[in-house]
Amino acid sequence: MAERIHIREVGPRDGLQLVATMLTAEQKIEWCGRARDAGIEEVEVTSFVPPSVVPQFADAGEVARGAVALGGFVAAALVPNLKGAQRAIEAGLSKVNYVLSASEAHNLANVRRTTQQSIDNFKDIIDYRNDLAKDPSKRRVVIAGGIATSFGCTISGDVDETRVLKIAAQYLEIGADELIVADTVGYGNPAQVRRLMSAILREAGSAPVACHFHDTYGLGLANVTAAIDAGVRAFDSAVGGLGGCPFAPGASGNINTEDTIYLVESLGFETGIDIAALLELRRVIESWLPGERFTGTVAKAGLPKTFRRILNDDRQQPRQATT
Amino acid sequence: MAERIHIREVGPRDGLQLVATMLTAEQKIEWCGRARDAGIEEVEVTSFVPPSVVPQFADAGEVARGAVALGGFVAAALVPNLKGAQRAIEAGLSKVNYVLSASEAHNLANVRRTTQQSIDNFKDIIDYRNDLAKDPSKRRVVIAGGIATSFGCTISGDVDETRVLKIAAQYLEIGADELIVADTVGYGNPAQVRRLMSAILREAGSAPVACHFHDTYGLGLANVTAAIDAGVRAFDSAVGGLGGCPFAPGASGNINTEDTIYLVESLGFETGIDIAALLELRRVIESWLPGERFTGTVAKAGLPKTFRRILNDDRQQPRQATT
Repeated sequence: MAERIHIREVGPRDGLQLVATMLTAEQKIEWCGRARDAGIEEVEVTSFVPPSVVPQFADAGEVARGAVALGGFVAAALVPNLKGAQRAIEAGLSKVNYVLSASEAHNLANVRRTTQQSIDNFKDIIDYRNDLAKDPSKRRVVIAGGIATSFGCTISGDVDETRVLKIAAQYLEIGADELIVADTVGYGNPAQVRRLMSAILREAGSAPVACHFHDTYGLGLANVTAAIDAGVRAFDSAVGGLGGCPFAPGASGNINTEDTIYLVESLGFETGIDIAALLELRRVIESWLPGERFTGTVAKAGLPKTFRRILNDDRQQPRQATT
Repeated sequence: MAERIHIREVGPRDGLQLVATMLTAEQKIEWCGRARDAGIEEVEVTSFVPPSVVPQFADAGEVARGAVALGGFVAAALVPNLKGAQRAIEAGLSKVNYVLSASEAHNLANVRRTTQQSIDNFKDIIDYRNDLAKDPSKRRVVIAGGIATSFGCTISGDVDETRVLKIAAQYLEIGADELIVADTVGYGNPAQVRRLMSAILREAGSAPVACHFHDTYGLGLANVTAAIDAGVRAFDSAVGGLGGCPFAPGASGNINTEDTIYLVESLGFETGIDIAALLELRRVIESWLPGERFTGTVAKAGLPKTFRRILNDDRQQPRQATT
């Protein structure tokens, strides 16, 4: 059995942050359900930011409740503060992805707090979660610590790797269950990714570490390969590569889910995901978002003749013997 | 000083093979001249195939003579047989890139010969070159041995790595000065590239080895990174990523020269190439080829703030002191 790499769909959150069309809560929940049916284990279903900041997420509570009702996958949400975490947990989510920026300038611009203030705020979230966990009837909520602009920042340029490592250490000390290391603006390159992720994995010990890459400058899949080399086994991506950067018009957004699966399975790992079902989901989303730029080569070029879609082949077998 | 990686422009050959618009010889020569002015050391300027096969190259002799007259860079041409090599050398080229397919089926379809017959034909080219070299007034022509479909074939699927290695060994034994290992249909993945290129570099010893990747399935730059890891220091690419595959409509073609330079320099190597001058060349080619699909993120998104264009910075310095 090949080793598993976990591909987590972040399209309903990061993919929608900048699109002009407002999707309905029903559509976002359908996105989650179809992703689950394709074999995706975890979806970042929405963001609990103030609706005044990102109107697309005014329906965050409704989407979260709908996703939880679907069941069969881990429904997570992005939160920038304690209030967001409380709303996410009240909606029934079992996972909360907190985010701060390693770049001080980016963090100030994003949430009007210093990075250290955001780290202190994370402690409040962990305390809140731990208080809730005292009630044995309640499921323990998993809290991930996300580090945005880990590979560079459009405002301040370089981001010191020791600073990213220090934040990772603080997150773990405070009680983060998982780390998400994000290349928010696509500045990372494979040498940098291999170096930083090796160091973070050493720091993290047994705690899971995921990477969140953007393909802004075309290095998304090269960076995934480098992170895999370093030992990372979980990646965020968006169907159709949605989620362009406001600072690079026309540029690519998140790494593309379909293409990432193709890469990862080509390298000999398994994802448990049915690419054909994902391409069907992509077509549905394309019909919802006319005029948006979708990326990815699998959708255009298909798959090489040499690519073995082991899972799909398995699924084509009858599930029960028909004797 | 950073280590050099050699980026060779193959756009005037591989980039034009499938485009509908016929460029004039003058335009192709301008392409070469602008590439040279941007700092590119080597250009595959044309292909000496029968004009009945690829009408775009009916002007091969004229383009080759024009490129040689420009000077200041290595002008090479692709040749499929002895006759092509003779025409290339008669036109004054100092480098000939012979090509055969590791896939028997692909070689038969392409040049109606078995791979072994193509290897025998290569010997004729080396003999021809060696005869010419007996005249001390003539410059020794460099002959590269290209191996197409080294990472898979649209007709026969998998291509045995031991077969590719054996061809590499035969090429070197016959007298090839250089090897070009080509992923003609974009089937390669980083694990495969690292494995095969490591083995080929061991086989090649001190002979230069270049990789020729296509981005058909989006893994082009991940494969460049893997090849660099293995020790490869020369890559073929085309400005604007021209050169789509006839078997994958809408798919990407050659790896994109601008993006490849960005990747390679991000990894800490130097190329000696001015990306801004290349982007200007791209705009010129776009004006010549309306309706063709150009790829690449540097042209769309620019370059990260953190990217240091050392060479351009150097060039911005006055060349002479103005005291």
